[in-house]
Amino acid sequence: MKNARRALLPALLGAAAFALAAPGPEASSDLRVTLERLVRAACETNGAYEAIRSLTDAVGPRLSGSPGDARAVSWAEAALAARGFSNVHPESVTVPHWERGEESGEIVSPVPFRLSLCALGGSVGTPPGGIEAEVVEAQSLEGVDALGEKAKGRIVLVWKVMERRSDGSGYGATVPIRGAAASRAARMGAVGALIRSVGTSNARLPHTGSLRYEDGVPKIPAAALANPDADLLHRLLADGKIVRVRFALGARTFPDAVSANVVGEIPGRDRPEEIVVLSGHLDSWDLGQGAVDDGAGLGIAIEAARLIGQLPKRPRRTLRLIAFANEENGLAGGRAYAKAHEAELSFHVAAIECDSGAGRVTGFGWTAGPSAEPFLTNVAEILRPFGVGDMKKGGGGADVGALRAAGVPLFSPIQDTARYFDVHHSADDTFDKIDREELNTGVATIAALAYALAESETPLERIPEAERAVRRQR
Amino acid sequence: MKNARRALLPALLGAAAFALAAPGPEASSDLRVTLERLVRAACETNGAYEAIRSLTDAVGPRLSGSPGDARAVSWAEAALAARGFSNVHPESVTVPHWERGEESGEIVSPVPFRLSLCALGGSVGTPPGGIEAEVVEAQSLEGVDALGEKAKGRIVLVWKVMERRSDGSGYGATVPIRGAAASRAARMGAVGALIRSVGTSNARLPHTGSLRYEDGVPKIPAAALANPDADLLHRLLADGKIVRVRFALGARTFPDAVSANVVGEIPGRDRPEEIVVLSGHLDSWDLGQGAVDDGAGLGIAIEAARLIGQLPKRPRRTLRLIAFANEENGLAGGRAYAKAHEAELSFHVAAIECDSGAGRVTGFGWTAGPSAEPFLTNVAEILRPFGVGDMKKGGGGADVGALRAAGVPLFSPIQDTARYFDVHHSADDTFDKIDREELNTGVATIAALAYALAESETPLERIPEAERAVRRQR
Repeated sequence: MKNARRALLPALLGAAAFALAAPGPEASSDLRVTLERLVRAACETNGAYEAIRSLTDAVGPRLSGSPGDARAVSWAEAALAARGFSNVHPESVTVPHWERGEESGEIVSPVPFRLSLCALGGSVGTPPGGIEAEVVEAQSLEGVDALGEKAKGRIVLVWKVMERRSDGSGYGATVPIRGAAASRAARMGAVGALIRSVGTSNARLPHTGSLRYEDGVPKIPAAALANPDADLLHRLLADGKIVRVRFALGARTFPDAVSANVVGEIPGRDRPEEIVVLSGHLDSWDLGQGAVDDGAGLGIAIEAARLIGQLPKRPRRTLRLIAFANEENGLAGGRAYAKAHEAELSFHVAAIECDSGAGRVTGFGWTAGPSAEPFLTNVAEILRPFGVGDMKKGGGGADVGALRAAGVPLFSPIQDTARYFDVHHSADDTFDKIDREELNTGVATIAALAYALAESETPLERIPEAERAVRRQR
Repeated sequence: MKNARRALLPALLGAAAFALAAPGPEASSDLRVTLERLVRAACETNGAYEAIRSLTDAVGPRLSGSPGDARAVSWAEAALAARGFSNVHPESVTVPHWERGEESGEIVSPVPFRLSLCALGGSVGTPPGGIEAEVVEAQSLEGVDALGEKAKGRIVLVWKVMERRSDGSGYGATVPIRGAAASRAARMGAVGALIRSVGTSNARLPHTGSLRYEDGVPKIPAAALANPDADLLHRLLADGKIVRVRFALGARTFPDAVSANVVGEIPGRDRPEEIVVLSGHLDSWDLGQGAVDDGAGLGIAIEAARLIGQLPKRPRRTLRLIAFANEENGLAGGRAYAKAHEAELSFHVAAIECDSGAGRVTGFGWTAGPSAEPFLTNVAEILRPFGVGDMKKGGGGADVGALRAAGVPLFSPIQDTARYFDVHHSADDTFDKIDREELNTGVATIAALAYALAESETPLERIPEAERAVRRQR
C-alpha cells in the first residue's frame, strides 16, 4: 500500500510538470508544483513522529536548568546534524532554574482525601510540613479581591472551569488566573492559593504552568488541583461544609543556569543572508514528557525544514531552524536570540513558530504588513485542496514575539486545540498522545508556508511600526 | 421543563390504566403497568446520582479495614434508613486489611524518568529504599515462564494491552495477568513484577486490583504501571536498550479487621419470608472515590429498591438490599452473608448484583433453571420499548456468587463497559465520571427486574444442581 502510494508520486509530479510546460490560464506555477510536492511528502513522512518519539523517549522532561534540559540541547544538536542541517550550533542562554521537589495535599476535613495537585511553576515552597487552613472559594480574580477579610489566613481556591474550544480560546479566558491568583490572594492576606487546573481533562492529573508574583506582595505557595479534585472542593463548599486542606510543596528556585537555543540551517541557494525562521521550543514542563508541548511543534518545524532541504532545488533564502530554550518559564530563549541577532534582524524576512500541539492543522495565521496579503492568499489557495489552506490574521508565538519589535513578519499554524489542553502542562503529555496523521497536517502546512516565504521574489512587507509593540503571548 | 415532564406522567399512567380496564389482545397486565411506571420514574430520578455523590463526597475511598470502610458502613445504614428501608442493620464481616503506604518508581537508565505506578492489592512492600534491577519483558503469563534464567534477579514486566470492548471481554483477557504475574515471575527468580495496567485509558494513572500469591513461591513486590509508562518501557526494550527501574512500595498487610455488610429491606406484602436480593458492594479501592466501582452499582440498587418501596402496592416478596463488604480484595462479604443466612437460602428466590459501572444498561443477564425463561422473556418484552429489554444467559456477580451453591437464580445488568475500564480501580474513579442519564438506565432495568422477580406468582426455577459449583467471578 505504501509502495503503491509512493509509486503514484512521480506520475503526479510528471503531470504537473507537463502542465507547467504548457502555460495557460490554469497552468501551475513553479511555486504550486513545489508546494504540492512538499504537501504530499509531508503526508507520507514518519519524520516528525519519530523525532518526537526520540525526544520524548531519549530525553524526557526538560525544564530549564534541569539535567533533561542539558540532554535536550545535545539531542537537538545531534538531531539537526543527522538530518543534514548546516551550521548546527547551540547559542547560550541564561535561564531560570526552578524545581518542584516532592509535593502532596489532602482534604483534612470534613473527610480525609488525598488531593492530586502540583505546584505552579515558580511557586515558593511551603514549610516542610506544609500549610493547613480553611479554604475559601472565588471564581475569578475579581472574586479574589472581593473576598476581603474572608481570605485572611485562609487558602484561597480560584475555581473556574476552562471551556473546551477548538480555537484554544478557553485558555485565554482562564490562564490569567494561573498567573495572578497567588499574588491577588496574598494581597487579601491568604496563606496559600489553589486553582482549578487550566486544562480541559477530567483526569486526576493537575496542570502546571508559570505564575507571576507581584512585587511588594508576600509570595505565597500556589498549586493547581486536578479538575475532579477542584470540583470536589467546590461541591463541598457549595454544600456549606467547612473545608480544611493541607498541602506541602517542596518547590525551590535555584541560581540561574545556562541552557541554549539550538540552531541549524538549510542554506538559501540565492540570498543566503536572508533568513526565514522555523521554530518550536526545546524545553518542557517537568511532569510529562513534553511530547505535545512542544515536542510536536519542534518535530513539525524540524521535519518541514528537512523536507525542504531534500528538494532538488532549495529555496532562495536560508531556513533557520531554532529550537528555543526556556519558553515555558521565562522566554529567555526568544529574548536572547533577538538580542544576539539584533544586527541581522533586518534580514529576517519571516519567523514561524509551532507551539500549539499535535492536533490537525488547517492553515496558517499571519502578522505582516498589508501588502503581504495577496502573496499569502495565493499560497493558501494552493494549499486549500489539501485541507490546509485556511488563513487568518494574527500569527506568531511566545518565542518569535521578541522579533516583532524589528517588524519581522510572524506566522503560526491554525491548529485544532480541542484536545490539546487535556494534556498540556500535565503528566499526561506523553508520546502516546500523538497521532501521526494529524501531526503531518502540520508538517504539510509549515513546509509549504516556509518554502513559499523563503522563495518569494521579494520579502513580504514587514509589520507596520505601529503594531510592533511586543505583546505577552502567554 | 422538568415540571412539564413530570406533569406528563399521570396522563401516561392514566392511559395505561384505561387500557387495563378494557382487556383485549393488546391489554396490559398489572405487571406491565407497574414495570412501565417504574421505568418512567427511574428516568426522572436524581436518587441514584445523589446517593453516589453522597457516598463519594462524604465517605470517599473505603478499602476494607480502612477508616473509610468504617465511615461507609455508617453511611449505608443512614442512607437506607433515610430512604425508608426497614430492618436496616449491619452484619459483621471479618475482612483483610492491606494498606499501600507511599510508593514511587523511576526509570534509572537509559534516561531518568519518574514512573506512574501503584502496588497491586495485597502486594508485599519493598525494602524502604525500593528495589532496583534490569527489566525483562514478557507479553503473557506463558511468556513469563518462558523467560527462564533471563528473569533471575530481574524485574519482570508483563506488557499486554487491554482491548476496549463494550462487553468488558478485554478485562477477562488481561486480569489473569494481574492476579498471577507476581508468583509466575517469582518462580523464575525475579525480584519484582510490573504489569501494564488492566485498564483502557491512556491517562498516566495506574490501575490497581488484587493479586494472588501462590503458596510455596517467594512473595515479590508487584505494581501496575500507568499505560503510557508501560508503553515507554516497552518501546525502550524494543529498541534494544538496557532498562533499569527502581521502585519502592510501602505496602503492608495488617491483621484482619471488622467491617460489615449493610442490609435493609422493603418488606413483601404477601410472602415476606421470600427474599429477592438487590446488591452492590460498599467497599472500594483506595486510589479514587469508588464512584463508578461500585458507588454506581450500589446507587442503582438502592434507588431501584426505593422506587419499588414507593409504589402504592409493594410486591409480594421482600426486597433485601445488601451493600456488601470487601468485594475488591477478598469477597469476605459475600461469603459471610451466604454462611450467616444459610438456613434461609431456600427462601432466596433471586439475587441481583450491580457491579459493572455507570454506563448505559440495555437489559439483564440471568442464571436460573430453564423454565424461568418464558417469564423473563415476558419481562424483557415489556422493557424493550424503553431500550432496556435485552436478555442474555449468564447473570450474577462476585458477591452473590456465594449463593450459587444454594441454586439461587442470579441476575446482573447488561451494561456498556466501553469506558468503565478507563477509570476502574484507578485514581480516576471519581464522581465527575458519572452521567446521570446513563446511570438511570440501570435504575430502570433493575427496578423493573427486581419488581418482577418479587411479584411473580411462583418463584423461578432455581439453578440446576449441575451448575451450582461456585465460580470465581474476578
